[in-house]
Amino acid sequence: MRVVVPFGGREPKTRLAPFFDADERRDFAVSMLRDVLDAVRAAGGDPAVVADAPVSVEAPVAVDDRPLTEVVGDELDGFDGDPVAVVMADLALATPAALARLFETDADVVAAPGLGGGTNALVVRHPEFSVDYHGASILDHRRIARDAGCSFAEVDSMRLAVDVDEPSDLVEVLVHGEGRAREWLVDAGVRLERGTGRVEAVRERR
Amino acid sequence: MRVVVPFGGREPKTRLAPFFDADERRDFAVSMLRDVLDAVRAAGGDPAVVADAPVSVEAPVAVDDRPLTEVVGDELDGFDGDPVAVVMADLALATPAALARLFETDADVVAAPGLGGGTNALVVRHPEFSVDYHGASILDHRRIARDAGCSFAEVDSMRLAVDVDEPSDLVEVLVHGEGRAREWLVDAGVRLERGTGRVEAVRERR
Repeated sequence: MRVVVPFGGREPKTRLAPFFDADERRDFAVSMLRDVLDAVRAAGGDPAVVADAPVSVEAPVAVDDRPLTEVVGDELDGFDGDPVAVVMADLALATPAALARLFETDADVVAAPGLGGGTNALVVRHPEFSVDYHGASILDHRRIARDAGCSFAEVDSMRLAVDVDEPSDLVEVLVHGEGRAREWLVDAGVRLERGTGRVEAVRERR
Repeated sequence: MRVVVPFGGREPKTRLAPFFDADERRDFAVSMLRDVLDAVRAAGGDPAVVADAPVSVEAPVAVDDRPLTEVVGDELDGFDGDPVAVVMADLALATPAALARLFETDADVVAAPGLGGGTNALVVRHPEFSVDYHGASILDHRRIARDAGCSFAEVDSMRLAVDVDEPSDLVEVLVHGEGRAREWLVDAGVRLERGTGRVEAVRERR
């Protein structure tokens, strides 16, 4: 299956500025992208990166700096009967098993919701479906599928629901990550701090 | 399967104080508990509530105001060869399908991790396993299982990963909830506000 992986490489992960400077944020973002590409391939997918700036990874990269909805919209406009998947580049917890569940779920449109109303991954098997990544996109995608007469299924996966944007998301990478992104955090001195409430991520040195 | 559902009913959901007064928080907490009990039964489980104060629901309730680790520890000490599950009462997104995956996963100990390092649900089929709900409990439960020679599996479910503690969690209930808790929020005037970043929950009236 063709799997489009959109990657924002120009100013990635600005909400992690309390932890990392701009170069570090880009390094970390690329380590997450590489983990996602590995997981996609291990799940039987054929990844293609669409990035807003050049990035060097072991996959074809097309540079396109338009908004996400337009970039993915163009990919879907080229629909030729073969399914197309879209998997975000910051799903640092994604495993081959979680992506295989996504790829193998049988519906015209299959979505993995992200926390906060997002759509972290999609499989599209119907020419009339289109995307809208603004706001609570999972609600829009449910509606667009219904209006287009597409069957719609959601994959219930924590590993696909967590996209890494904010410091609190680093906890999930430390607890559940299995790849480069977790290693990168550990090497950068990020560790868990266990308090009385929810666990937090802290950085020991910069 | 016997399914223990611990419920903190005395001062529930204090972190939702920006949205609800104490009586409302208790009402909302009970609506989540009722949803969880329904989902447990629909998944083939036999729920038993352990609460720190009396609560009226359609399930047996034992009142026990000790800390969670001790209450669940006692349940597991009574292990007689039949599996015992523990499912938190604030899993407002839990569905019968998600719980069935938990109940049917084959291992001595099966855990559904919660966001932030927690353990939102467990199935225990081994007498040597014990619980520790302080801090990043999923890490402790992995270690305890390993030290006790138990096989350990984790269920990858967003619906079991989200426990409703904070205002941002209300977004998940509005977007993905299918029961009383979502209805309760809607009746209380809580709705989604779509901005440019992550979607937020807001309350229109108090």
